[in-house]
Order: sequence, then structure tokens, then C-alpha cells
Amino acid sequence: MNKWMKLAHDEALAGMQNNEGGPFGAAIVRGDELVCVTHNQVLATNDPTAHAEVNAIRQASRILGSYDLSDCVLYTTCYPCPMCLGAILWARIPTVYYGATGADAAKGGFDDERFHTFIRNPGNAFNLAPLDMEKTRELFNRWLEKSDRILY
Amino acid sequence: MNKWMKLAHDEALAGMQNNEGGPFGAAIVRGDELVCVTHNQVLATNDPTAHAEVNAIRQASRILGSYDLSDCVLYTTCYPCPMCLGAILWARIPTVYYGATGADAAKGGFDDERFHTFIRNPGNAFNLAPLDMEKTRELFNRWLEKSDRILY
Repeated sequence: MNKWMKLAHDEALAGMQNNEGGPFGAAIVRGDELVCVTHNQVLATNDPTAHAEVNAIRQASRILGSYDLSDCVLYTTCYPCPMCLGAILWARIPTVYYGATGADAAKGGFDDERFHTFIRNPGNAFNLAPLDMEKTRELFNRWLEKSDRILY
Repeated sequence: MNKWMKLAHDEALAGMQNNEGGPFGAAIVRGDELVCVTHNQVLATNDPTAHAEVNAIRQASRILGSYDLSDCVLYTTCYPCPMCLGAILWARIPTVYYGATGADAAKGGFDDERFHTFIRNPGNAFNLAPLDMEKTRELFNRWLEKSDRILY
């Protein structure tokens, strides 16, 4: 196996065996150096966002002191779910290698295919309604008027 | 304003004024009680996933000791980005109220419309390639064979 994917694989296996979460692992690499290797910790932390990829991005950005991981590569044992794909986009990671597919994950009991539909039309998945639009919209005017705002 | 949205709004404003991140706030409520109110902290923490909604879900799940927030309501000052929509789905939050729209956010310099396209076809946004599929696929067999696995 690729050495980085092997690290992610072994981390996934250990996390699963310790009942920390499902069988998912991820590694973030910069140049020839490992930045971090993580696993799913939804069960260990009760955090529904603690997927291997989100954990890797959070840890790498802390280690590297930047929310911009555009000089990094992500290795993940499974094709990322929509939430993790969003996190990868925000982190500007330019290259992602994945192991198993979404279909493999679905066979294992982790089916996020419907999420793709719901993210485009979330009102089909949960109650979604606008509220206080004018007052909250003003926040963006305040932001644009802020002379020391940091674009990110 | 709705009292919970007002809390989220005021939190967004304070976070922005403190240069912790963009003008985004969120509150999670259970019954008549506030669980937590959070703001975007991407700049403060260097964590690209530290959006107001993700922060709220992480904090609420820690406070309530559960990754299942299906008895909670989320108030967010802006329509959630795809990553946050994914987090809401994983957290099973059944009701979401949002303030400003994605178009308002785009006018403020935060445009995630393209993310919707990329999440369906991420290969259009970054390099994406399979690697070691057979070995990583086996993780799901190990998971299904695990007698004490906890479904989540």
C-alpha cells in the first residue's frame, strides 16, 4: 500500500477496534512529511462532525497555524461524505486520495448518498424556514463597512 | 427579532468585531432552553471548519453528551454552507431557521454557491483519485464482522 494510505488505514482500524467510531481514517501530508493522521471519533467524543477528514483538517490547521492547507495532500480510507467534501473545499486542499467508495461504505452501513440530494434541497430533509432576514442581512453591511476586516 | 435569532445575531456581531471570523452566528435550543450560542471562529482558531453552525453542533453535542441532536432547533444568521448542511444532517437536527440568504452572503464576499456543484463533482475542484481500494474496502468487512460495533 501507499505508505500514507497505510497509516490512515491502520489508524482507522485502531479507532474502530477501540469503539471510537466507524472504520475511517485520514492522513494529511505536506511535501514528504506527515502532518497528522486521524480517525473517526464520533462515538468517542459524541461529536457528529468528528469524521476522520474533519479531524485531520482541524488538527493540521492547528499544527500548521493556518486555515489554508493548499500545500497539503489528504489521504482518506473512504470517499468523503458531503460535509467532509465541504471541509476540504474550505481548507483549499488541492489533492485528495481516497480508498473505498461510497458504495463500499453503504454496504458497511454508512450510506450518505441521500445527503447529496438533501444538501441541494435541505427542505426535503428537515424543516427549514427564513426568519428575521432584514436584521441578519445587515450583518454583511456591517462586515463590508469594517475597515480592518480580514478576507479569508 | 426572535429571541434566539437575536442571540445568534449579537454573537455574530461580537465575533466579527473581535476579528474572530466572518459575521456568522448560531444558536442551538432544546425546548425552551438555550443549549449554546456560537460564532464563526475561522480566523481566531485557524480552523477552516469553525463555522458558526459546526461550532454550535460540536458544543451542543458536548454539552448534551450525544451526537444525536434530534430534539434541538438550530438558529443561524445565514443560510448554511454545504459543509454545515452536512453537519446538520449528521446531527439529525430536525428544524433550522436561517436569517440572511446565500445571495446576501455572496454580496458580503462569502460565496459558496460553487461548492454545491463541487460537492457533487469534486474532481472539478481539486485532484481526486482512488488509491489502494481493495485494502481499504476490507475495513468495512472488519466493521461488519465486529460483534460489539455500535451503529450510529
